Amino acid sequence: MNFINIAQNAKIAALEIADISTEIKNKALLEVAKLIENNKEEIFAANKKDLEEAQFLVDSGELSKSTFNRLKLDENKMRDMIKGIKDIASLEDPVNKKLFVRELDEGLTLNKVSCPIGVLGIIFEARPDVIAQISSLAIKSSNAVILKGGKESINTNKAILSVINDALKTVNGFPENVVQQVFTRDDVAEMLKCDKYINLIIPRGGNSLVKFIKENTKIPVLGHADGICHIFVDKSADIKMAEKVIVDAKTQYPSACNAVETLLIHEEFPHKNELLAALQLAEIKLIDNPESWSFEYGDKILAFKTVKNVDEATEHINAYGSGHTDSILTSDTENAEKFMNKVDSAGVYFNASTRFADGFRYGFGAEVGISTNKTHARGPVGLEGLTIYKYKLVGNGHIVKDYADGTKQFHHKDL
Amino acid sequence: MNFINIAQNAKIAALEIADISTEIKNKALLEVAKLIENNKEEIFAANKKDLEEAQFLVDSGELSKSTFNRLKLDENKMRDMIKGIKDIASLEDPVNKKLFVRELDEGLTLNKVSCPIGVLGIIFEARPDVIAQISSLAIKSSNAVILKGGKESINTNKAILSVINDALKTVNGFPENVVQQVFTRDDVAEMLKCDKYINLIIPRGGNSLVKFIKENTKIPVLGHADGICHIFVDKSADIKMAEKVIVDAKTQYPSACNAVETLLIHEEFPHKNELLAALQLAEIKLIDNPESWSFEYGDKILAFKTVKNVDEATEHINAYGSGHTDSILTSDTENAEKFMNKVDSAGVYFNASTRFADGFRYGFGAEVGISTNKTHARGPVGLEGLTIYKYKLVGNGHIVKDYADGTKQFHHKDL
Repeated sequence: MNFINIAQNAKIAALEIADISTEIKNKALLEVAKLIENNKEEIFAANKKDLEEAQFLVDSGELSKSTFNRLKLDENKMRDMIKGIKDIASLEDPVNKKLFVRELDEGLTLNKVSCPIGVLGIIFEARPDVIAQISSLAIKSSNAVILKGGKESINTNKAILSVINDALKTVNGFPENVVQQVFTRDDVAEMLKCDKYINLIIPRGGNSLVKFIKENTKIPVLGHADGICHIFVDKSADIKMAEKVIVDAKTQYPSACNAVETLLIHEEFPHKNELLAALQLAEIKLIDNPESWSFEYGDKILAFKTVKNVDEATEHINAYGSGHTDSILTSDTENAEKFMNKVDSAGVYFNASTRFADGFRYGFGAEVGISTNKTHARGPVGLEGLTIYKYKLVGNGHIVKDYADGTKQFHHKDL
Repeated sequence: MNFINIAQNAKIAALEIADISTEIKNKALLEVAKLIENNKEEIFAANKKDLEEAQFLVDSGELSKSTFNRLKLDENKMRDMIKGIKDIASLEDPVNKKLFVRELDEGLTLNKVSCPIGVLGIIFEARPDVIAQISSLAIKSSNAVILKGGKESINTNKAILSVINDALKTVNGFPENVVQQVFTRDDVAEMLKCDKYINLIIPRGGNSLVKFIKENTKIPVLGHADGICHIFVDKSADIKMAEKVIVDAKTQYPSACNAVETLLIHEEFPHKNELLAALQLAEIKLIDNPESWSFEYGDKILAFKTVKNVDEATEHINAYGSGHTDSILTSDTENAEKFMNKVDSAGVYFNASTRFADGFRYGFGAEVGISTNKTHARGPVGLEGLTIYKYKLVGNGHIVKDYADGTKQFHHKDL
């Protein structure tokens, strides 16, 4: 089947799933979880095949060890994957929520109601657990999805998707083609052009994948390329707190997008040397003269710079940051307010580690990704980011002429 | 000044205006309204110059009479323009609104706060009143704006913008370069490429302008190209209501984007001939075999088609519509529900004229435009559509490690 047919089928599926009940969607998710559990040996076998092929590439230096590790499904990842699907089933349905009800006039009522976006295109690298997670998020939010996974995990992806679709087929009233998969680079090229049928692209993977996608499509893309996060240590920062928070933000998971990359220190902070020594003790490599202030190390490396004041700190962040998450450590609430208002990032923190930027930690229950966009959804995005709204207007033969000629007046009463 | 400098200045202005008070913004708007009132003779004089040049183009057939009329500022339009600015001053500030406050754990509080998008690029055709309206919306929502108007209204635009900036300069604390203007086609080309500094493009004008822009930029575009609106007359529709609503939706303002273009009639509707006769009496030209079902007549012309049932009606609308506004006329609430759920449009109406799709009629107080997008903002867009949000997290030295190793647990309590 060529891509356009797949996209057309997705569009039909999207229109159908837009109107099914929460019960059917949750039943579908629980069936998927159950069937993955029941078929995990087959999935492991498919994964083994991928791993064997990947091992050759690792040996020949064509694939990194970390990609190999992400590719590998073990009992832990399988358990998390199944639990993740069940968790999504237990979340509140993000669609069909009344966002407001407003009586425009006697008998003329406007309802703003959340609804799905339509067709999602998901492009992800060699992480086979993503396929179950994203499929579940799509189902819960009543969107159809076309998935394109990394070629290294093709056998695992096929096995998981086949189980998902076997499960969905058993659920009465659940439309077909809600979850589809494509495999080639040509499919990706078609997907990026297919703005007629695809409403949102979500890339899940490294920097260069996301950049490539953002540069090659006119379809809205939800995600982030860089995560250049900053911590600014103000003059009045507590030294113990600074040590603790910076070590957490840099070392707790250095390759995360919300790990700190640049430390800005107020020139009158009295404990600068003590702080830098403590960071080095925590095995953080400090760089005071980086080639670029917009580099994501993804490792225990931290660029640092002395700044005059909170204004210079915010200017630096707005110039070199990626609008992801930036934190001020201070005892001065006025400076904290200024920092949080002036820094133009999705997350602006006061005395907290940048690593909190995460949908689960924010209490969203599930995470689609983290967006550095300035429209639609910003920061960690939960199920809500996969919805939009429609306006349902219910009248009784109401016409605009009556309001234009003054026969009637709107009264705009929120109910 | 070249475009990049203008865009950089806009970005700086955007960061500054993001943090000024509601009072300063409202003061600025009232100053703008006052200075336009005081300088209206100069503005009329500039407009007269544009009209003289435009008259040559009308005479030589290069400019339509309707463009000429839109170009013309008269006392009525001037009064509406000034009133519009004052109205925007009186609206609630859309930024700095707390969208939620959630305690993630003891002493760790997440605030979701509305904030401006950043820099808006506005491209509009020969309607000089747009410049004051859009500048006011940008100011109220704390966004910077770069305006490119139609070349036919260049003198009027320059005069109005000069008055606006003179007014803004008198307001203490109001940043410079919030409202800037560019003039050439090259500037438009630069604007559409400038995703580094411009966060949202809003085209205000005809179909072909909007299509051109959507096809030539990767920056999010807020707006709509087509307005192919439908009315479906169900079997049980009231004949008198159908006559009244369809006549309103087609004739009250035929060139509006929310005017109806296609009428779908249930094959068992018993009053079909009576209805068609009544529409013809209202000077509506009926076409039962149009070249395309996706054509926007913008005139008292209405395509019509008989369909089997509500399902065929929704399928037709989802296939040929533009996702703008579609209405069902029926006495059957079950069919109405089905129609409103299944039709994938920004507005889905039950027994009401499609002409209600409008920000003022919805009670938004001001309208940026009508969007047929599936992300960010859909339908009539008010000031809220010019905002996004940021997450402010306030802690007391909180680190993620404590939650990862089980020392602490999130409690996610909404306050």
